Order: sequence, then C-alpha cells, then structure tokens
Amino acid sequence: MADTPPLFKTITIVGPGLIGSSILRRARQTDTIAQKLIAADCQEAVLHRVTALNIADETTTDLIAAAAQSDLVILCIPTGAIRAVAATILPHMKPGSILSDVASVRSNLGPEIHALLPEGVSYVPAHPMAGTEYSGPDAGFATLFEDRWTLLIPPPGTAPEAIALMEAFWHRCGARTRQMTDQYHDQVCAIVSHLPHLLAFTICNTADRLSADLQTDVLEYAASGFRDFTRIAASDPIMWRDIFLTNKDVLLATFKRFEEDAHRMVKAIQEDDSEAIMQNLQRGRHIRRGLMPEPQN
Amino acid sequence: MADTPPLFKTITIVGPGLIGSSILRRARQTDTIAQKLIAADCQEAVLHRVTALNIADETTTDLIAAAAQSDLVILCIPTGAIRAVAATILPHMKPGSILSDVASVRSNLGPEIHALLPEGVSYVPAHPMAGTEYSGPDAGFATLFEDRWTLLIPPPGTAPEAIALMEAFWHRCGARTRQMTDQYHDQVCAIVSHLPHLLAFTICNTADRLSADLQTDVLEYAASGFRDFTRIAASDPIMWRDIFLTNKDVLLATFKRFEEDAHRMVKAIQEDDSEAIMQNLQRGRHIRRGLMPEPQN
Ligand SMILES: NC(=O)c1ccc[n+]([C@@H]2O[C@H](COP(=O)([O-])OP(=O)(O)OC[C@H]3O[C@@H](n4cnc5c(N)ncnc54)[C@H](OP(=O)(O)O)[C@@H]3O)[C@@H](O)[C@H]2O)c1
Ligand SMILES: NC(=O)c1ccc[n+]([C@@H]2O[C@H](COP(=O)([O-])OP(=O)(O)OC[C@H]3O[C@@H](n4cnc5c(N)ncnc54)[C@H](OP(=O)(O)O)[C@@H]3O)[C@@H](O)[C@H]2O)c1
Repeated sequence: MADTPPLFKTITIVGPGLIGSSILRRARQTDTIAQKLIAADCQEAVLHRVTALNIADETTTDLIAAAAQSDLVILCIPTGAIRAVAATILPHMKPGSILSDVASVRSNLGPEIHALLPEGVSYVPAHPMAGTEYSGPDAGFATLFEDRWTLLIPPPGTAPEAIALMEAFWHRCGARTRQMTDQYHDQVCAIVSHLPHLLAFTICNTADRLSADLQTDVLEYAASGFRDFTRIAASDPIMWRDIFLTNKDVLLATFKRFEEDAHRMVKAIQEDDSEAIMQNLQRGRHIRRGLMPEPQN
Repeated sequence: MADTPPLFKTITIVGPGLIGSSILRRARQTDTIAQKLIAADCQEAVLHRVTALNIADETTTDLIAAAAQSDLVILCIPTGAIRAVAATILPHMKPGSILSDVASVRSNLGPEIHALLPEGVSYVPAHPMAGTEYSGPDAGFATLFEDRWTLLIPPPGTAPEAIALMEAFWHRCGARTRQMTDQYHDQVCAIVSHLPHLLAFTICNTADRLSADLQTDVLEYAASGFRDFTRIAASDPIMWRDIFLTNKDVLLATFKRFEEDAHRMVKAIQEDDSEAIMQNLQRGRHIRRGLMPEPQN
C-alpha cells in the first residue's frame, strides 16, 4: 500500500518498556519503518502485555535468536545493562545489520561496544530526548518522539549508510535528529536533564525529612514550583541511579558549578546584598529569554 | 439582581498588577464581592491600562483618599513596599474597615502592622498560593484563584468577624482558605516555593555561564526537567529578591538542609554506592506518592 518502502525488514526491540513500546507503537502505525517487529524481554509477563497490546508481530525471551534474524536491534533497556546484553547478542548479528540503543548517557559505551562489533555490523546509538515519569509497555505511545530531538552518537568510523538509515528511522518516528560526540552529549545532558533531576530528587528528599505536620501541609499547598519538582522526582529510580553512576564525572563537575552559583546567591541573601541578588536573578532569566518568546510585558 | 448581597461597599486594590488585577476581574464578574472597586497605583500608565481594561469603577494615584473611603484595602504590591504604604494609609482608614495584603512572605509584617492599627481597623493579610511568571494589569485573570489555597495569617487578637469576612471574600474569589501563624506560613512556603525558586534561578544561572556553543545546545535540547526550571526562573526578579530577603532566615535554614541532602547524594554517586543512591531516590519519590495518584505501574 505505502509508496515508501520500509527501512528495515526485521527490527528487534529488546526491552519493550516506555521507550521500546513507543517505538513499537510508532512502527506499527506506519508501514515505512519495518516489515516485521519482534519484542524481546527476559520476563514473560512483559511479553504477555506486549501481545495483549498487539504492538509486535512476535515476542520472545530468546534475545540471541531474535537478534540473529534482525536488520536492526535496539536495546531499550537500562543504561547499566547495555554492555552485557550487547556482548551477548553481537556475535550472532548478521553482516549489514545495525545495533542501537537509547541510553540516556554515553560515557565509554561508544568505544567499548565499537570494539566488540563483528565484521559488517554497525553501532548507531541514539538518545531520544523524550520521556515521561512512567515505565513499562503500557506507558508508551506512538507520538512520544514527535517534534523532539533524538541525539545520534555513532562512534568515529561508523559506516555513513548506517547513520543515514538511523536518521531516517528517527525522522519516521517523528523526531528531529542531530549527531554529536559522546563527550558533548554527556555534557549537554548533565545540565539539561541530569542535574535538574538530581536537584528535584533531593528537594523531595528534604521535604520528606520534615516534621509530619509540616510535611502534610507541604503536600497540600504544593505550589507550581514544588509540584514541578515532585513530577520530575517521580521518575524511575533504577534508570536514574544508572544515569547518575554512568555520567558521574560530568554530573559531579556540573553540580560543583551549580553549588558555586548557589553559594553566591546564598551569600548575597545573607549579606542583604540587594544588588547582587538582582544580578543573579537577572542572569537566571537571561537564558530563559533565549528559550521562549518574551512574557507579555 | 444577585440574591447574595456584596460583602463590602467599597474595596481599594493598591497595585493592580497580576494579583491585584485578578482580584478586580473576579470582583467585577460577580456582584457578591463589592459595590464599588477602586484601583490605586503610583503610576498613571498602570491606571490607564486598568481603565482600558475596564476592571475598576475608579482609578486614582491618591492612595490616602481611596483608603479613607474604603471598607477593605488590599495591598497587592511587592513585599518590600508593604510596611511603608501601610504606615501611610492606616491613619486615614475608617473604624470597622480592614487592611489586607497578599505578600508571599510574613516575617515580622504581622506584629509590625498590628502595632500601627488605629482603633477599630483590622489587619487580615492573606497569601493566595497562585500566580504565573507574568506581571502587570494585563497579566491577571478572574479564575487565577480558582481551587487554589489562600493562606490567612491574621495577627493574634484580630477580630473574628474581620477574619470571617476575609474568608468569605476569598471563597467568592474561588479559593479554599486556611488560617495559620506567620512562622508556620513562612516555613511551608520556604520549602514549597522559595527554595524551588532559588534552585531554579541558580541552575539557569549555571547554564548561562556555559560556553556559548554548549549554551545554545542546552537551550535547544532543553528537556522537560530543565524547561520546568527555566519557566520558574522567568518570574519577576524584584518580587523574588523581596521574598528571599524577607524570608532570609527560614530560607537559608531550609537551603542548608537541602545542601546536606544534596551532599549525601553526591557522596553516594562519588563512591558508586548504588544502595545509598537508590535510598535517596526512593525517599524523593515517597513524598510524591502522598501528592498524586500512583503512576500506572
Ligand atoms: N524514560 C525516559 O524518560 C527515557 C528517555 C530517553 C531514554 N531513556 C532510556 O531508555 C532506556 C529504557 O528506559 P524506559 O524508560 O523505557 O524504561 P522501562 O519502561 O523500565 O523499560 C525498560 C525495559 O528494559 C527491560 N530490562 C530491564 N533490565 C534488563 C536487563 N538487565 N536485561 C534486559 N532487559 C532489561 C525491562 O524489562 P523487565 O521489566 O523484564 O525487567 C523493560 O522492558 C534506558 O536506558 C533509559 O535511560 C529513557
Ligand atoms: N506573582 C505571584 O506568583 C504571586 C503569588 C502570590 C502573592 N504574590 C504577591 O503579590 C504581590 C504583588 O505581586 P504581583 O505578581 O501581582 O506583582 P505585579 O504584577 O508586579 O504588581 C505589583 C503592583 O505593585 C505596584 N507597586 C510596586 N512597587 C510599589 C510601591 N513601592 N508602592 C506602591 N505600589 C507599588 C506596581 O505598580 P507600578 O507598576 O506602578 O510600580 C504594580 O501595580 C507581591 O507582594 C507578591 O509577593 C505574588
């Protein structure tokens, strides 16, 4: 029916959770991504949900068999599990096929997995800058990547055709794409995502240590500021533990800069230095002006 | 027409900005709040906007004359300006009338203004837990307070009828009300609002110090986490300077607790202490569970 032929014959999604099942849903909606969709997971229960949701053509717990027949395998599993799963399936992947993952941090994943690649297999990981605080196959939706960035981080020396294919894949998922290095990726994400999450988890932690009375009222009166933080802090702890550990060095360096800035502000408040406070507040607003149209006045 | 008689004959709103003009709009929409609405401000330009928007019966720069004929005067001006304006108008207010304000911090405002009250005048300040990052008379809207909390903080010894009137006033503005002490108010707001704003301003500050390249990309890829923070940090700097200075002691004590919690998390990450990281993340999620229905799985 479709005039555009599908990009891949067979795709395996390992880990049909929030991200994985969103890819499945999207590929299911359009004929232009894959002819056949396989969902692979270690847990039968997860695969039963995938079958009930009817978002894959096949489900299996046999990752190796699935990978062996696929033109594209995307690991949609926690960052900390990627190395081991990649090492297990890579020896069985076909020449000309592509391995990808959607991990939120790169660290040394690129060179490490590049070193394991069999002849003719490419590694083109891609990080979609989209997500929610929910997880599992029921949490996904086909429009998750719509108009969001997906950052491609292929190791140096990756075949250009493989990169182009993965770019086309993400465009057909609705995303915009950009290529960057592992280091640059991890720096951008440290400030855009990892530090905000660290702060949000921490302030909820601080609120949780309050007296029971005060805590109840904090929940009750949660104004926009705090409510936004608690939403961020509702995200999956395993995923965030992995992210914090994997991007440790960059994250801690970014936190250090943040702490210096916080101390500058705290000192200004302590010393009633109205001028310095205003400077800090204005600088904080400055970056916002690059992001959004000006408020009405 | 209305079966419910208006609560007040004449109300003066000093400072018809975001909050003040929202009260005016609401009172204009219903006949049950006031017979006559006066908007008072030092700037003619602001009053011209109020006239153009047709949200008051009268506008004036003469705060004293307006206060002298009012049954209720609400100061909707920056926290730092309240003491001086209250001192100017209070001697001219009628016996039986009420002075109120909407300041976001209490500190010593309660006892200080209580000490200035002429015979028969009551002071019933109320802090509506609602707002946006915009300001000025054009930014207000009649439903701003709908289903939000307004915290009443009358000084000890305030006439119960005056408190009851102000409760009715805020209910007719759509809000839920609760009474609390100044100290408790400032503690709740420090964690619910002031600390989140301090952190949001600071992280935007940190982002603004990045290299120009990285900064552009940070703006470009701003994921949910960071975008929420920049929205918070877009709020009015003068208002936030006032809030930070007025709630200095409680805010800095709350920041100190937050910093301890942050250091605990940073140490756990530094030492690859997966267990401790998970504990901190889980505790952060705990408070969220009190706030919202559980995520789907
Ligand atoms: N959520 C976001 O906002 C977001 C955004 C961008 C990228 N990412 C990245 O996307 C990846 C998946 O995140 P998600 O939010 O989709 O998580 P999710 O909904 O929890 O799904 C994770 C999936 O991975 C499977 N899995 C877990 N451990 C595994 C292991 N050791 N070996 C094989 N499979 C395993 C899980 O299966 P079981 O249930 O059977 O364990 C589940 O199907 C992570 O790397 C994350 O960093 C997430
Ligand atoms: N925005 C929020 O989210 C929020 C929420 C709850 C409570 N509040 C509190 O509400 C109050 C007003 O905030 P807002 O957001 O409505 O601010 P806004 O939109 O900037 O309005 C402030 C008004 O106060 C007037 N004003 C400023 N300085 C004054 C002075 N020294 N004497 C007399 N009038 C003065 C301004 O008039 P000019 O333009 O002529 O200077 C303006 O009309 C503050 O105390 C704030 O803490 C704000």
